[in-house]
Amino acid sequence: MVRTNPERRQALLDGAIEVLARDGARGLTFRAVDKEAAVPPGTASNYFANRDDLLVQVGHRYYERLQPSDAAMSMLTEGPRTAETITALMTDIVDRITNFRTGYLAQLELRLEATRRPELQSLLTERVQADLTLNIRNHLDSALPGDEDTVLLLYLSLNWLILERLTLPGIFTEEQAKALVATAVDRAIGKG
Amino acid sequence: MVRTNPERRQALLDGAIEVLARDGARGLTFRAVDKEAAVPPGTASNYFANRDDLLVQVGHRYYERLQPSDAAMSMLTEGPRTAETITALMTDIVDRITNFRTGYLAQLELRLEATRRPELQSLLTERVQADLTLNIRNHLDSALPGDEDTVLLLYLSLNWLILERLTLPGIFTEEQAKALVATAVDRAIGKG
Repeated sequence: MVRTNPERRQALLDGAIEVLARDGARGLTFRAVDKEAAVPPGTASNYFANRDDLLVQVGHRYYERLQPSDAAMSMLTEGPRTAETITALMTDIVDRITNFRTGYLAQLELRLEATRRPELQSLLTERVQADLTLNIRNHLDSALPGDEDTVLLLYLSLNWLILERLTLPGIFTEEQAKALVATAVDRAIGKG
Repeated sequence: MVRTNPERRQALLDGAIEVLARDGARGLTFRAVDKEAAVPPGTASNYFANRDDLLVQVGHRYYERLQPSDAAMSMLTEGPRTAETITALMTDIVDRITNFRTGYLAQLELRLEATRRPELQSLLTERVQADLTLNIRNHLDSALPGDEDTVLLLYLSLNWLILERLTLPGIFTEEQAKALVATAVDRAIGKG
């Protein structure tokens, strides 16, 4: 029987994120998750059908915890229709992801694990694709400068910028990273 | 005593790359490398001072195996000074890295492992920084269109494009990925 106390389920998923970031995919066991979430042994196995189910739920939880702020959503719909508004939005999302360090590292571990698990790969693909499609639609609906390629290029470049900041922080200073977001936006918009 | 037969050393590093890609950083032991390289037990421990030394040498070996072709180098110095030449060069490097799938996945495992090992992190940072500096100098010396930011933006966006192709290949088709390289180049060059 799969248990459904939503708060405990979230605590288990948040624990799994910490385990993944710290110990890698190989360290992720139900026992490690129980320990990390400080719940009785056997709890995680009551909440997830198997390890793959847990991995996929972690992927969803990552996106859940990265929901844009109300401020960002209203900037998207009501801010001036300029490159500066896009830069402010992108800076907001880059900062939110960078500050959720363990979540991002866990997500990378999931991607690497997906190269070994077709089922996980197909579920993560759906999740990322849905997110990308939503971002493109939001951008086009917003009448902000740029097009579909603008969104795709920002998705690519800012994801790696975050990866760089979190895995090799000596490559770009915080100031350089900040400037790169603005440059990435300006150039991704194109010549119009 | 650290052994120095260069061919055997390379075979061990290539074995370590396969182990990292397949089993993750946690699976990388001297014993696993010996087995993968099909050499007698105890060989790897004669070639590397410790596991960190092995990890760093794997990082160098990755770059060694990705040396640009003579064709790419002569295109860089002698091709027409246009965006198309940059696109051809970038397509060449993206293809080479994508085809060296295990090398790229091993490199990602090293980055994740670096978040847990300051010494490895500092050595990888040096390596990546040197590579980036060289790419910028080559680009500026080449008088191809674009500037330092062009190189940085291509570094960011194409690295993630490769990661996407290798971890979630369903997100972009091969054709879309190819078109994205050209678009990334055009936009990274900027308005001039």
